Formats: sequence, C-alpha cells, structure tokens
Amino acid sequence: MSEHTVKAFDDDIGELRGLIAQMGGLAEAAIEQAMDALKRHDLTAAATIVEGDKKIDELETEVERLAVRLMALRAPMADDLREVVAALKIAGVVERIGDYAKNIARRVAAIDGRSHIEPLSLLPAMADMANDMVRDVLDAFAARDPEAARRVCERDRAVDDFYNSIFRALVTFMMENPKSISQAAHLLFIAKNLERVGDHATNVAEMVYYAATGEYLGDRDQGDTIGLNGE
Amino acid sequence: MSEHTVKAFDDDIGELRGLIAQMGGLAEAAIEQAMDALKRHDLTAAATIVEGDKKIDELETEVERLAVRLMALRAPMADDLREVVAALKIAGVVERIGDYAKNIARRVAAIDGRSHIEPLSLLPAMADMANDMVRDVLDAFAARDPEAARRVCERDRAVDDFYNSIFRALVTFMMENPKSISQAAHLLFIAKNLERVGDHATNVAEMVYYAATGEYLGDRDQGDTIGLNGE
Repeated sequence: MSEHTVKAFDDDIGELRGLIAQMGGLAEAAIEQAMDALKRHDLTAAATIVEGDKKIDELETEVERLAVRLMALRAPMADDLREVVAALKIAGVVERIGDYAKNIARRVAAIDGRSHIEPLSLLPAMADMANDMVRDVLDAFAARDPEAARRVCERDRAVDDFYNSIFRALVTFMMENPKSISQAAHLLFIAKNLERVGDHATNVAEMVYYAATGEYLGDRDQGDTIGLNGE
Repeated sequence: MSEHTVKAFDDDIGELRGLIAQMGGLAEAAIEQAMDALKRHDLTAAATIVEGDKKIDELETEVERLAVRLMALRAPMADDLREVVAALKIAGVVERIGDYAKNIARRVAAIDGRSHIEPLSLLPAMADMANDMVRDVLDAFAARDPEAARRVCERDRAVDDFYNSIFRALVTFMMENPKSISQAAHLLFIAKNLERVGDHATNVAEMVYYAATGEYLGDRDQGDTIGLNGE
C-alpha cells in the first residue's frame, strides 16, 4: 500500500475504534443508570434508558457501514482485515450489552419500589463487577493490550459465583414470600442479564486478544451459568 | 471482475451459505433434542447436546475464516460485500441459537423428571413455534427470499405471547408449590431462552431482508419480552 493509503486506513480504523469506545461508554453508563433506576423505582429514568438504547444501535449501524466501506475501498490484508472484522464483532457485542441495560430498565416497572425484596440489595455490587469488566476490556481494546484482555477473562468466574449466590438467595426469598414471587422472578432475570454482561465482556476480551496476537485465548466455555442444582 | 473471478466469488459465497445452512440444521436439531431430553429427564442426551454445540462453534469459526479470506482475495464490492457481511452476522446469530439449546440441555439436570411441574407441558409447543421460525428463516436465506423473511418476523409476536402465558403459569405454580420453586425458576429461564430463539430468528429475517433488498425492515423493537406486569 502507498503511504497515503496506509494513512487513510489508519484514519478509518481510528474512527472505528472511536465509535466503539463511544458505544462502550454509553452501554456502561446505561447499565449503571438502570441499576440506579431499579433501586429508586424511577420509571422516568427507566424510560430514558430504554429510549437511549437507540443511540447505541445507531452507532453499531455506523460501525458496520464504516467497516464495509473500509473493506471495499481499502481492501485491507491479513492483520488489518482481522482488526476490521474484530471491530465489527465487538460492536455487535457492545450493542448487546446495551440491550441488557434496556432489559433491566424495562423491568423497573414490574418491581414495586416499596416492597422490601432483600436480595435486591446484592444486585448493585454484581452490576459493578460486570460493569468494571466492560470498562477494562474496552480500555484493553483501545490500548490493544492482550494481557489486560486476558486479565478481564479471569474475572468472569467471580461474576458467575455472584450470580449463583443471588440465584440461591432469590429462590429462598420466593419460598418464604410467595406473594413476591413475580417480582423476585424479574430480579432473577436481572441477575441473569448482569451475568451475561460479564460473559460478553469476556467475549470481547477474547476478540481483543485474538485481534492483537492472532491467537485464541484457551478453550473457555462461554455457556450460560445456570445456578443452583444444575451447575 | 473477470468471469473467472465472478465464478470464484460465487463458489465462495455458495460455500458460506452451505456452512450456515449446516449450522442452522444443527442448531434447530439441538433445540428439538434439548426439549426432548427435558421431557424425558435424559441426562445422557443432555450431555451429548452440550458437547455437540462445539461443532456449531467450529462451523462459525469456519464461516469467519472463509468470509475474511473471501474479502481479502476477492475484494467484493457493494451488494456482494453486503452479502458476505450478512453471512458473517447470520452465522453469529445461529451460533447463539445453538447456545440456547446448550443452555436448555444444561438445565435438564436441575429439573427432576419425577416431579410434576404442570407448566412444563407448555414448553414443547413454544419450542416448536420458535424452531419453525428458525427453519423458515434459514429457508428464506437459502432462497434469498425477502418476502418469506418478512413473514417470519410477523410470527415473533405469537412466540412472545406464548412466553408471557408461560411466565404467568410458572409464577402461579411457584406460589402454589413453594418446594418446586427452584425447578420452576429453571423452567422460566428455558421459556426465556425459547423466546430469545424467536427473537434471533427475527433478527436473521431482518438481515436476510436487508441483504436481499438493501432496505431495512421497519423499526422493530428487538428487546426482551419481560412478562407479567412489566409488559
């Protein structure tokens, strides 16, 4: 490639990375805000989060258009192409993290702010753990740092363990409070969503590692953590 | 492009489509087998399904490698590039449908085959609805038929309605059978997985429509169906 072409490609890749960083920032904030809306039973905030998810979806579409244009115009080879494809996939995963925030926000209405559902108090700490993984993996992506990406993967187990504890706590709560079963069921799904956020951060970490090194990070099982009895 | 290049591109795209059809067939069969293992509480069959998911993952990796090679060697333009990118994305979604089958299979162990959990009887019909959507959308993809894809989208609401009914039935069952709450919670997640299979079939339908026409299919909300109270 000529120097001019290389420069143009670097600019485009820089733009792709910038869009993904923007998506990641929005998704991370959305998770935090959704947990906050849940704690305060704030339906207005919840509606804003649901609406705000469209912006993340739009950014993903923009990433796709730019990636396709970049591949068509610059016909990147080997490492560069691997990076464009990784960017496409990472944008897809970040969009799904945004969806989880939206799903949590949607459940705010189903959980009565006045009722005292004890295990609810465990969720914010789990959300923080998952969200920290998202932030750190996006930093690793920005810095093209495979070792930082690997460290994010290692933290997924802690989120899974937390999920299993919450599953147990909620099932016990349901047994003791049959009238709150419906609300507790919504909290089960929220805990599950957060567990999936951790999984997705791990997926991104694997992609960052692959894009940076060309090698796959072990044979990690990316499956669902199912909780009590079935683990 | 020379005639030779066009032929080579068509061959590669045909290979991509073949791989995706193969993935789709495996994912569809896995969902069916998982529901069957659940009904019969067959732990051996469940383990085979979990193990078999690796094959779907491998095929996705193969789709990615082929797509990247195809873009690098043939530098496809406009419509062709759109088709390759659509194939990449569709493979990603089909892989997730396979994951749902795996997740369902994993929960078989957590559900006691001898206990009579009434709403369990509703799940196979829901699985059939979702699985029919998967089969039909893969047919639409193979036939590049945007109208068939649009019809698949229209069926997602019926799956969502079914999910809402099952959510209600399970919550009621939990209230009346506190000792079976943990098992019923696993069934809630299975119902949710099936609801997501329907969503993913719809996502693929949208991609098929876009790849075939270059236009987006409406502004459908792809969010979670949250069930009772929060709808």
